[in-house]
Amino acid sequence: MTAFDIRNVDQEQLKNLHASLLDQQQVLLQKKLSLDLTRGKPSSDQLALSDAMDGILKNNYVSDSGTDTRNYGGLDGLPEAKAMAAALMGVNNDEVFIGGNSSLTLMYQTMQFLHLFGMGADAWQKEGNVKFLCPVPGYDRHFSICEEFGIEMVNVAMDENGPDMDQVEALIKADCSIKGIWCVPRFSNPSGIVYSDETVERIAKLGKIAAANFRVFWDNAYVVHSLSKTAPQLSNIMEQCRKHDTEDSVIQFGSTSKVSFAGAGLAWMASSKANLASFGKHLGIAAIGPDKVNQLRHIRFFTQHTSFEQHMEKHAALLKPRFDIVLSKLDQHFANSDALSWTVPEGGYFVSVDTQQGLAKRVVSLAAEMGVKLTPAGATFPYGKDPQDCNIRIAPSFPSLVEIDQAMDVFSLAVKLATVEKALAA
Amino acid sequence: MTAFDIRNVDQEQLKNLHASLLDQQQVLLQKKLSLDLTRGKPSSDQLALSDAMDGILKNNYVSDSGTDTRNYGGLDGLPEAKAMAAALMGVNNDEVFIGGNSSLTLMYQTMQFLHLFGMGADAWQKEGNVKFLCPVPGYDRHFSICEEFGIEMVNVAMDENGPDMDQVEALIKADCSIKGIWCVPRFSNPSGIVYSDETVERIAKLGKIAAANFRVFWDNAYVVHSLSKTAPQLSNIMEQCRKHDTEDSVIQFGSTSKVSFAGAGLAWMASSKANLASFGKHLGIAAIGPDKVNQLRHIRFFTQHTSFEQHMEKHAALLKPRFDIVLSKLDQHFANSDALSWTVPEGGYFVSVDTQQGLAKRVVSLAAEMGVKLTPAGATFPYGKDPQDCNIRIAPSFPSLVEIDQAMDVFSLAVKLATVEKALAA
Repeated sequence: MTAFDIRNVDQEQLKNLHASLLDQQQVLLQKKLSLDLTRGKPSSDQLALSDAMDGILKNNYVSDSGTDTRNYGGLDGLPEAKAMAAALMGVNNDEVFIGGNSSLTLMYQTMQFLHLFGMGADAWQKEGNVKFLCPVPGYDRHFSICEEFGIEMVNVAMDENGPDMDQVEALIKADCSIKGIWCVPRFSNPSGIVYSDETVERIAKLGKIAAANFRVFWDNAYVVHSLSKTAPQLSNIMEQCRKHDTEDSVIQFGSTSKVSFAGAGLAWMASSKANLASFGKHLGIAAIGPDKVNQLRHIRFFTQHTSFEQHMEKHAALLKPRFDIVLSKLDQHFANSDALSWTVPEGGYFVSVDTQQGLAKRVVSLAAEMGVKLTPAGATFPYGKDPQDCNIRIAPSFPSLVEIDQAMDVFSLAVKLATVEKALAA
Repeated sequence: MTAFDIRNVDQEQLKNLHASLLDQQQVLLQKKLSLDLTRGKPSSDQLALSDAMDGILKNNYVSDSGTDTRNYGGLDGLPEAKAMAAALMGVNNDEVFIGGNSSLTLMYQTMQFLHLFGMGADAWQKEGNVKFLCPVPGYDRHFSICEEFGIEMVNVAMDENGPDMDQVEALIKADCSIKGIWCVPRFSNPSGIVYSDETVERIAKLGKIAAANFRVFWDNAYVVHSLSKTAPQLSNIMEQCRKHDTEDSVIQFGSTSKVSFAGAGLAWMASSKANLASFGKHLGIAAIGPDKVNQLRHIRFFTQHTSFEQHMEKHAALLKPRFDIVLSKLDQHFANSDALSWTVPEGGYFVSVDTQQGLAKRVVSLAAEMGVKLTPAGATFPYGKDPQDCNIRIAPSFPSLVEIDQAMDVFSLAVKLATVEKALAA
């Protein structure tokens, strides 16, 4: 099969092609598929890598540091859990706060506290309208948090180095109601790019030009989630912040949701001691402490049973073939085509594709008719509105290899159909 | 030893008594005790009752209802967990929402959502000043949540039947800015009383006279935590609400924090489906789902390993001797004395004592000097202000029997010293 290309076809050829695609669509419709490429969920095989966590305590619930993990307390986490997270995030042990099972919850709470109460500086809500920078395409759940608190989102372009920093700096200098920026710095959701060293340093320096209550939300969700050993590294933002004396301006988030169990992992945040103290003061009203037994399970698992590095290699061995199918299918159908462009991530959970302008919704709808669920078009943009209607996020981690193969054929056909429809209507 | 009584002593006898008490104080000071009666923490023996939860999954992480508990999702909890909580709370399975490890967090989130966004009715913050009724003495962490959101607390008296309902109804009728009431209906914190059937019904009827966005926070923390089989039962408030068509007006909370592990239990709320849907809508912004693996552990533990009833009997067997020491010491030192009165709880985690007016702070301070930490005087009142300065909460669950014995001698001496000091100053 040669890749799809309609740049040099005439109207008659286009009609024939359309008819042929409709025939293919009929074949796929008859298969009555029910496939799902929507969310970045680990597969059962990945989850099974951590099954040994059950029973790992062997009736010893006391941590090395002497805490009975079964009881109340320990709002900021066990020292051993902090040390584990600190090593992953590249910060000191006292710059980590261990939460429950969800970094999303920590992000929500951080935004809530900053908005309602302030953390070491004025509460955002005191200042009236608040804005947040959102590099796009991005993560829909980040955007939902802003929306929940009535925070206005401002799109910022992304390229292969991360957010367009000229744009970011200019916006911040011009408007002190901008109180933060969302970042997924390594294997960005959904583009999979890794922020360049220069971008990381420029983000660390934003604290110099922004308002005192400006905060970078550094969602390092995929910090150890590379698909190969040669994947690009991420520069240490905390080191950059120390260099520029802006430690309060960045709050990092991470978790083991895609390391151990998606729903029963450990989440944490890392920031200046001042930020964490302020966070803890408010969290202490809402909670007596996180599940320390689960912290202990993770500590034991990653010291006695395996190492993070070994464990993540096993994840990569399960994930890489899935990404490879997606990418080879895209290549097979659209190499050098102007119908579709896509990213080639070296880690994370997503492949981001761009259709021609105005076709993403149609592609998602056509794929759905053929039994393949995709993340709704627009979901990667604030308010669900992709101004170009071209970005679609593909999440290949959960389905089986056979399912991905089938789903990508459906997806490719949907792209071709939508593209031909557009050409015919032109 | 006869109980302490200074009602018929003259000034000279009082001075001699004071001197003798100071001697006793010197003896206790030399013991350099370090004892703690502050918080309602389960003892290690109690926690060990649930140690079999580790390893109970035996590599089978799939619930009977077919959910892979390791993965994301299930915001409102596993069906089996809901059924378990529903049976405890006396509601239908679809009237339960399973949270993380802390009912306090669910209470905080509920108040937050009611205040900021509203749940099926106007958001409280839209209406300006908001007030909340606080039966006193009560639970300091409830009061802290109100304070966090700037909600004004109004004290309501308690008697052996629960809150003074004449006062509650009159306040609500007179002031529509009253948006709720805190209740710990069974083995109230700290008094240990159980709300009478009439009180429960009158609380269920508050929805008839209160604002549409009024909510009863029914913290049923000690629902199955009786010290004996003859402890008084609590009337089912949901049944009363159904009778009076006020299901939206009451939100129940509960957890296994004092059943399984204090820091690693299951928490839940129970209310009308409308309230839970509204709660879930907002929680879904902050979280992808609770730790379902821990839910599965609890389900297996309480079906395969033990029953709630058997398990709570084991807790009672560990707790009752501790309460017995406290009560027998109080009897021994203060039977028929006007220096101290106290409650005799049949469940829960606390004994509430009242000193003479103006002495609670002094008693806590004297006990601290002798090495016994008590909950700060005033903590059982909003803003930490006990208008009579007489209430102290004693929490005997955590220390050993020997420690409680020692601590109660210290406490009793502190009460006597403070009482004599007051009499001398009179």
